[in-house]
Amino acid sequence: MSDEITPTYDDLQNLIERLQDGETGAEINALLAELHPADWADIIEELPPKARIQLLRALPVEDAAEVLEYIEDEETVAIADQMALEELAAILDEMAPDAAADLLGDLDPARVEALLAEMDEEDAVRPLLAFPDDTAGGLMVPLPFSLRSDMTVAAALDALRESSPDAELIYYLFVVDQKQRLVGVVSLRRLVVATPETRIATIMDDEVLTVSVLTDQEECGRLLQRYGLMALPVVDESMRLVGFITHDDLVEVVAEEVEEDTLHLGGLSSESEVFDSLGGAIRKRLPWLYVNLGTAFLAASVVSYFEPTIARFAVLAVFQSIVAGQGGNAGTQTLTLMVRGLATQELGLRDAVDLLRRESTIGLMQGTAVGIGVGIVAYLWKGNLLISLILCAAMMGNMVVANTAGVMIPLLLERAGVDPAVASGVFVTALTDICGFTLFLGMATLLLP
Amino acid sequence: MSDEITPTYDDLQNLIERLQDGETGAEINALLAELHPADWADIIEELPPKARIQLLRALPVEDAAEVLEYIEDEETVAIADQMALEELAAILDEMAPDAAADLLGDLDPARVEALLAEMDEEDAVRPLLAFPDDTAGGLMVPLPFSLRSDMTVAAALDALRESSPDAELIYYLFVVDQKQRLVGVVSLRRLVVATPETRIATIMDDEVLTVSVLTDQEECGRLLQRYGLMALPVVDESMRLVGFITHDDLVEVVAEEVEEDTLHLGGLSSESEVFDSLGGAIRKRLPWLYVNLGTAFLAASVVSYFEPTIARFAVLAVFQSIVAGQGGNAGTQTLTLMVRGLATQELGLRDAVDLLRRESTIGLMQGTAVGIGVGIVAYLWKGNLLISLILCAAMMGNMVVANTAGVMIPLLLERAGVDPAVASGVFVTALTDICGFTLFLGMATLLLP
Repeated sequence: MSDEITPTYDDLQNLIERLQDGETGAEINALLAELHPADWADIIEELPPKARIQLLRALPVEDAAEVLEYIEDEETVAIADQMALEELAAILDEMAPDAAADLLGDLDPARVEALLAEMDEEDAVRPLLAFPDDTAGGLMVPLPFSLRSDMTVAAALDALRESSPDAELIYYLFVVDQKQRLVGVVSLRRLVVATPETRIATIMDDEVLTVSVLTDQEECGRLLQRYGLMALPVVDESMRLVGFITHDDLVEVVAEEVEEDTLHLGGLSSESEVFDSLGGAIRKRLPWLYVNLGTAFLAASVVSYFEPTIARFAVLAVFQSIVAGQGGNAGTQTLTLMVRGLATQELGLRDAVDLLRRESTIGLMQGTAVGIGVGIVAYLWKGNLLISLILCAAMMGNMVVANTAGVMIPLLLERAGVDPAVASGVFVTALTDICGFTLFLGMATLLLP
Repeated sequence: MSDEITPTYDDLQNLIERLQDGETGAEINALLAELHPADWADIIEELPPKARIQLLRALPVEDAAEVLEYIEDEETVAIADQMALEELAAILDEMAPDAAADLLGDLDPARVEALLAEMDEEDAVRPLLAFPDDTAGGLMVPLPFSLRSDMTVAAALDALRESSPDAELIYYLFVVDQKQRLVGVVSLRRLVVATPETRIATIMDDEVLTVSVLTDQEECGRLLQRYGLMALPVVDESMRLVGFITHDDLVEVVAEEVEEDTLHLGGLSSESEVFDSLGGAIRKRLPWLYVNLGTAFLAASVVSYFEPTIARFAVLAVFQSIVAGQGGNAGTQTLTLMVRGLATQELGLRDAVDLLRRESTIGLMQGTAVGIGVGIVAYLWKGNLLISLILCAAMMGNMVVANTAGVMIPLLLERAGVDPAVASGVFVTALTDICGFTLFLGMATLLLP
């Protein structure tokens, strides 16, 4: 057993540099041989196209297949496009069927048919192509093995011994009736500890959570997380068992879905990566900036309306951004909680009116705390009592607006079928800017002499 | 098998309302009996304290224990505090040892000793109390079963049959030497399909990823996700196997860690929940608002410096927020990618100088695109060419600052040992506000007649 838990990033960086410099030979091969496919994948992603292919070709085909499964989708496609048909088909045969189907789904459709014709595992992979990547059908592996409830434990173990050892790890064994409908599940452990003559029916658990082939992957991930599942069986419209989703895919989904919300809240498309190409990065980020620009001009038009007041009291320009900005910050806090609450479905059990009352109360209390603080600092700084009082009042009002909008906007978007993580931020900050400027500059226009 | 995949939230809401109204009897008990412990937990969290205890007491003790494992930590403590010593000890005995240790760690230390003395599972739970909740030692379950490499498969299966059937599901069997040091791992499936006389040594995998008892849970989650693990063995300082972390705990950790970054980026403490008590919510959110307020005053002081210019050209107040705000948006985009990249350690392989060059180029390109757009709209709106040109130039400059700060600030915070997710946002927006106002109002002061 290697002493090292996992290579450090300095180790990997060092290997990458040596490979980039074109180093080959026994020493570097020995170092590479110790790595996990996930580490291989990291290294390959950093290399130029030609070096990638060379390195992959030097690997046994089953290792190359495993490494490809760990490489980002976009990069995998680029690598696949460089390979000859037979070479790629051989690798696809060694990949997990769900991963092979994902890759095929991203390739040129004309090439896909030729590849499938060349593959040995065509039968396992072709049915998966029918389902989108982000559904249970797209994530599942076709069922390699199932039991019948009238089997004995001894017969089940014999059947298991005969089944292909290449199949993915089985921790749950699914039990089907003669029509291939799922009737229960038994853990391998339970099978092993049971006496050989026991009937499967007596040790199986007949309460099984299932998903349909078209269930969204987000829902699959939620079930995994909520119920602590290790694998999720997938059934077709006749309730026949057609495959199951393995736990590593589900963990990816759970992480991806939270990550997607994080990126959306940061004003980014869900597929954004730190290392997108320059053009790709700008294509993904610029549209959001333009959307925000639109709302910024809306808010600016409010300020413009009050230009005559600002011309008389330029000090208003000093404070206007504080009112708008603090509203935006408070609204973003509420919004972030709401988006996460909606994503984990924790909010489903609560009443919207309750939430609204709660958050507007928090807004009022925070608005008072922040408003008084701002008012005092502004008075000590500029010495104008009336402006300080207006500032305090506008801040209180805008914080109530912020927290109310932070609740309402995600709920309304969700009801309208729009992902609240994507669009809520723009609306909330637009509202807090507009209300902040209107309240502060409006009161100033009315009240200042 | 039930037809229903999982109860809908309307179903749960309905049950909660009926229980809140004090309904008891056979019908509601039948409905409750069908639920998964995770659903029970949701229902119990919504009930008043007295109803909670009643409902839990009506359950068999092993069911009550499982339900408690799904309830939020804070609520579990409140429930435990209401229970008698013997009652609670009996439930703790039925909980997974890591969950029991988590709960005990949150209780009054004086009570913990009395509870442990009352418990049958004291020996399994007490060693876990030595480790913080968020380390591998706090997450692990003590090892229920291990194999020796010189055993035959038949002997291993016999030993497995004799081991407690109550132990947590075993998907990997760990192999130790005579000093209890981990030497390999064999999957149950491999054991089952091997011929009975095979030696464990010949079928075990001797490359095992391990973590130490004090490894941070974030690192454990990262290993799970990166290498697609199902369980993670935990060793002590002498490399002896002391336990393992099960996959459901690791999934929770993966989700928690991404979620924590999301909340931090939204300006919230990591433990924030939509349903914190009013006081709790304000205690967690208000400090962040005050921190932001500090930076807002800093930016305001920049505006204040240019008050004379604004008094002459009030229209500057209309555009100043657009420059600052767009800078903040662009900086947040870069920042969000950086924080996620640092968390997943993808950034470890890249050069800071490379990143900086990349992001400042993106900043310049986006600044040009946005700046020209803003300049044109401003000119069409206000008809002042010089101000429009100043606006365009300031926007370009601030976008470069934004993207540079979005890279540098998280990297510097990380190097200083501060979680970049927590503090980056404040610094980035402070910088983009200050630079935005300085560039725009400064150029206006210098160039306007």
